Amino acid sequence: MTRTIRRPDVARAYGAGEIVLFPGKADHLYRVRTGLVRLHTVDDDGAGVTLRYVKPGGYFGEERLIDRPRRYFAEAVTNSDIEELDADDLDGEQQRDLTRRLAAAIDGMNRAMHRLAGKPLRARIAAELLELSDSELALRSHDGTPVVRVTHDDLAAAVGSVRETVTKVVGELARAGAIRAGYGKITIQDAAKLRAEAGEERV
Amino acid sequence: MTRTIRRPDVARAYGAGEIVLFPGKADHLYRVRTGLVRLHTVDDDGAGVTLRYVKPGGYFGEERLIDRPRRYFAEAVTNSDIEELDADDLDGEQQRDLTRRLAAAIDGMNRAMHRLAGKPLRARIAAELLELSDSELALRSHDGTPVVRVTHDDLAAAVGSVRETVTKVVGELARAGAIRAGYGKITIQDAAKLRAEAGEERV
Repeated sequence: MTRTIRRPDVARAYGAGEIVLFPGKADHLYRVRTGLVRLHTVDDDGAGVTLRYVKPGGYFGEERLIDRPRRYFAEAVTNSDIEELDADDLDGEQQRDLTRRLAAAIDGMNRAMHRLAGKPLRARIAAELLELSDSELALRSHDGTPVVRVTHDDLAAAVGSVRETVTKVVGELARAGAIRAGYGKITIQDAAKLRAEAGEERV
Repeated sequence: MTRTIRRPDVARAYGAGEIVLFPGKADHLYRVRTGLVRLHTVDDDGAGVTLRYVKPGGYFGEERLIDRPRRYFAEAVTNSDIEELDADDLDGEQQRDLTRRLAAAIDGMNRAMHRLAGKPLRARIAAELLELSDSELALRSHDGTPVVRVTHDDLAAAVGSVRETVTKVVGELARAGAIRAGYGKITIQDAAKLRAEAGEERV
């Protein structure tokens, strides 16, 4: 069995909204210890495009493994502790964990691409809210229903639309009784109804 | 160093157009030895949505690593030899190779999501043609220019549109002098012009 001397992990704390990484040369591999990180690019019109969310235990910066430049921003959505890892110094179990996490990231991106390309906007927004209700962005209200802290701008970036259109669709989903909309947050009032709007089984 | 007895690799040959895998339970991890494989889902209207292309040396079926169901079809685009691997029986070097290949798949999907969400259709089609001109689908014509064997239906699936619209845009790109369109194939007449249409540096 190969044994390597590992450096103590370097972990840094980031506040909600703080940019962790900018596009550019990839130096490290990163692992989210606590919190939630959003990876996004910015299109030619300056609108954000969410590539994926990274939850605790998940990695980003994997382009370091293939010596390609990083094409995205990484942003701490909530307060987050993030480890910097030396990609050349992973032991066997870390390597397997990384592989599984990357496979899970691909699975999530497959679903996002399917939504992005194949479904009407209303279904994409419903699916995105379901996805977020199972993340660090979700709280519970006093009556136990999930509350997602997300702005219409964030939702627009996630589903490839603009804020004005998202606001209109959020209103429709609220009138349909699936959600309740508040300032910077959306309450999942009827998850079954929201799943029907998303046109998908919960995954 | 851990040594494992490896089974002889099981490789199977598939003809162009043959379905390698249907959605369902994931049994194996797959590696493309030669050829080109397209992973795609089908949306509610029956239209295909391309998730990614897998080139020689690349893997698919990675959902096997996380015991999730496979949500996509895998189709041999050209004649392809494909290995079935036992995901629990990879040695260290194979594991690292798999990790790098998954990281490269994510990098490619990041670019595809950026195109899908953030760019006009004409730029998405130009970018897709550039991507394909660097794959097994590309031939060289007698004067050395790359020729991509792709139908308008395939292009529509890749960029999240329909055939009729793709046909119109292909005509525009041809009139602009970037490509020449033929039956089931598109010639990259002026790669620099096509890159400008795609609004991106070649990656």
